[in-house]
Amino acid sequence: MAAPLYLRLADTLETMIRRRSLRSGDRVPSVRRFSLEQRVSVPTALNAYAVLEARGLIEARPKSGFFVKPAELDRIPPPSAAPVTTRVCHLDQADPLDILSADHYHPDLVPFGSLVPCPDLLPSRALGRILAAEARKLGPGGSNYDMGPGHFGLRREIARRLLSAGCALGPDDLVVTVGATEAVSLALRATCRPGDTVAVESPTFFGILRQLRELGLNALPIPVDPGEGMDLDALAVALRRTKVAACVVVPNFNNPVGFLMPDGRRRELLRLAVSHGFAVIEDDIYGDLPHRGPRPHCLRALNGECVLLCSSFSKSVAPGYRIGFIVPGPWKERVRVLKAASTSCGVTLAAAAMAEFLRSGSYDRFLRSYREALRQQTERMREAIGQAFPGGVRVSRPQGGFVLWCELPGRVDALALFRKARESGVTVAPGPIFSPKAGKCLNDGRASGQNFSNYIRLNCGYPWTPKVERAIGILGHLVRELAR
Amino acid sequence: MAAPLYLRLADTLETMIRRRSLRSGDRVPSVRRFSLEQRVSVPTALNAYAVLEARGLIEARPKSGFFVKPAELDRIPPPSAAPVTTRVCHLDQADPLDILSADHYHPDLVPFGSLVPCPDLLPSRALGRILAAEARKLGPGGSNYDMGPGHFGLRREIARRLLSAGCALGPDDLVVTVGATEAVSLALRATCRPGDTVAVESPTFFGILRQLRELGLNALPIPVDPGEGMDLDALAVALRRTKVAACVVVPNFNNPVGFLMPDGRRRELLRLAVSHGFAVIEDDIYGDLPHRGPRPHCLRALNGECVLLCSSFSKSVAPGYRIGFIVPGPWKERVRVLKAASTSCGVTLAAAAMAEFLRSGSYDRFLRSYREALRQQTERMREAIGQAFPGGVRVSRPQGGFVLWCELPGRVDALALFRKARESGVTVAPGPIFSPKAGKCLNDGRASGQNFSNYIRLNCGYPWTPKVERAIGILGHLVRELAR
Repeated sequence: MAAPLYLRLADTLETMIRRRSLRSGDRVPSVRRFSLEQRVSVPTALNAYAVLEARGLIEARPKSGFFVKPAELDRIPPPSAAPVTTRVCHLDQADPLDILSADHYHPDLVPFGSLVPCPDLLPSRALGRILAAEARKLGPGGSNYDMGPGHFGLRREIARRLLSAGCALGPDDLVVTVGATEAVSLALRATCRPGDTVAVESPTFFGILRQLRELGLNALPIPVDPGEGMDLDALAVALRRTKVAACVVVPNFNNPVGFLMPDGRRRELLRLAVSHGFAVIEDDIYGDLPHRGPRPHCLRALNGECVLLCSSFSKSVAPGYRIGFIVPGPWKERVRVLKAASTSCGVTLAAAAMAEFLRSGSYDRFLRSYREALRQQTERMREAIGQAFPGGVRVSRPQGGFVLWCELPGRVDALALFRKARESGVTVAPGPIFSPKAGKCLNDGRASGQNFSNYIRLNCGYPWTPKVERAIGILGHLVRELAR
Repeated sequence: MAAPLYLRLADTLETMIRRRSLRSGDRVPSVRRFSLEQRVSVPTALNAYAVLEARGLIEARPKSGFFVKPAELDRIPPPSAAPVTTRVCHLDQADPLDILSADHYHPDLVPFGSLVPCPDLLPSRALGRILAAEARKLGPGGSNYDMGPGHFGLRREIARRLLSAGCALGPDDLVVTVGATEAVSLALRATCRPGDTVAVESPTFFGILRQLRELGLNALPIPVDPGEGMDLDALAVALRRTKVAACVVVPNFNNPVGFLMPDGRRRELLRLAVSHGFAVIEDDIYGDLPHRGPRPHCLRALNGECVLLCSSFSKSVAPGYRIGFIVPGPWKERVRVLKAASTSCGVTLAAAAMAEFLRSGSYDRFLRSYREALRQQTERMREAIGQAFPGGVRVSRPQGGFVLWCELPGRVDALALFRKARESGVTVAPGPIFSPKAGKCLNDGRASGQNFSNYIRLNCGYPWTPKVERAIGILGHLVRELAR
């Protein structure tokens, strides 16, 4: 006896999912449409979907319909926490960022190395039109200095937006900066003196390591749990023997690991900060980019006294407009003077354009499609890695942003992969540059003995194209070679 | 017997000049036009002009005609060199710049305090149109990061222009910065370590003193000769007992004194730099603004090994576009890394717009009228001071830029004048803020015992209007009151 119709329909759908005609996260046709297409009754279609749901292949989302569950992907485990030596580090002088950033816009290279979204995804044309309109509107004022804490309208719009991050702020609580880079630099200079030690997540974004080095600060690397962020037991132990002036964290969609720090861990970090008297510098540049659902809160929402919130629109609107900001809390006057001494002020028209982009609602509208694009890109990259890389690979599963942190089989040397991949036209960020001896390892050329010697970070800022697919294939091939 | 016709004509013209219907620097009607207007023969007109020339009232300029000589103004002597204590100074923490910059765009104040040109003088609309065109042209690329040393086209155009400053450079010799502020900050960080001592001109632009303070550097003030710049004998003596890491100078149309450092003194400064092993940081932001004639050379033209040339277009095109640059010489790699750690990069579209403004020749065309406007404004301010202020006032006579440095009668307290003038709607920069205890004196509120206690700096960036004329009158009245 043949299986019931709804079961046969369920099998057909399952095959489509297994063969990736329907991919994880894709919306499954509505029950009504499916019943029409398959010429079956609505109850039969509904039964088929119920079977698939029971098999763990699709899931219902309230008011949105059915979606393919990322069951396949779940077979790729998250990376493990690499061993980290929690010891104060004098940072080395070589700089790994130069080569990665120089490569980024190279037309012959697939840019998985730098964490920069594809220009075509960003609202550059709309923003350019707003910029032109602001230049006309402001006339001679368009080239005035943007004195003091920076463009008032921009600060007001940012303050309004930060309500969704749990922060009730006014324009006067903010200082506009030249990207988040300047914001973090000012935060470090306001809270530390040369020779001080700063606790950092390990792995750490190498840009932060470079800033510490250039300000004469030492790094205290604290291991992170791949799912939850900084290991606060390790931090507490380290604090017993080491005086720390500040701690830099990326709690929302961390770079490179991708975690969203849970609330309890945030509170515990702040408790340590208060009791040991150090400042917490929060880099929130990915906070506006959850793949789904509401924006996560900032650490700043929990404590206005010890947190300096730093962010920018470089990852979410326009890298080249250099619009960042800092909420410096009690360090406000210091930060303002330091900013005046570093750059005086930012570009008036860029600030005016960004203010209008936020005010008009264009940013919110843009974010809806952009976040979905980043989600799809990140999941497809992850899926493709699962297929192209050898068994034993472990990949992060971020809920926001556009980065993957991959642990390769133990024998694979990430620096060798970095070099071979670049020769083949693909850039990656090798794991060792996320530890304090970042630059040195690139010069030495071998990862062994380094932290994260078998990890790489991949940029998922580019849409899924045959070129990107081929690039993942190339990486998979090289990893297999190196794993032998 | 009546005087010959040409003598009577000369007398008429002299009366016009004395009554200021023709002002110093004004062009006198051409001989042909004058002869037509006065219905006299050309030889008679020419004779009249010859008489005026002999009386020292007008001068012929090759290919330009006759101009009123600034004879009247010459009666105002230049300021004298104030006594300066050449001793290493730990800089105080208060900051005088905040109040001056906050005041600058205040609609109720006449802005003689900050050194900023009137927005209406600047080519903001033309630049805004270029910016809009660049945004359209670049499309998605307009919001890309401006990686590495910054916009190539801009660096090429700047390098080309620097030929007229005596420097043969290529694009790779430059790094684009966020105004000259970032350029000087990077130069200081590349050449000094916290605790080092930096020789500065005294008086010094307070922005430089603020930068030294925020970088943990000490200032060694060296007196300047009002006409020729830094007193190198004093520097040589100071160098015998003090190790200096760098020396910051503004050799072209100095802020605040206005001098153009003569060639011999430049060479002597560089000789001292080489023999004592310190870096020379040259701030050239007024170099493009000679009132007449060719652009003066940069210090960098004399030595590429110990000079770091810093400049921007903030005083000459658009303060709010934040386009500066540095020619870091042997410190190039350090400066690039420091810049990356401070701000990553500047605003791509602002750099592209400035590059096109330079490339198209718009800048050169603009400079011609702008320099003449600055010359007239500066001379009229000077003239008006001579009339409105009491005897004993001494005023600098810059050949470029738009600043006047005024020495008031000895009893006048510049800080009292600063406060009273502000209450009357006029801002000035009081002399004491140009010395290392800049901020403290503003807080204490009295100038006595401070360097430059009876000096003020005046911004001549605004066109001559009844409002500006009234403001000078107010200052004159207050100075007379305070001089009693």
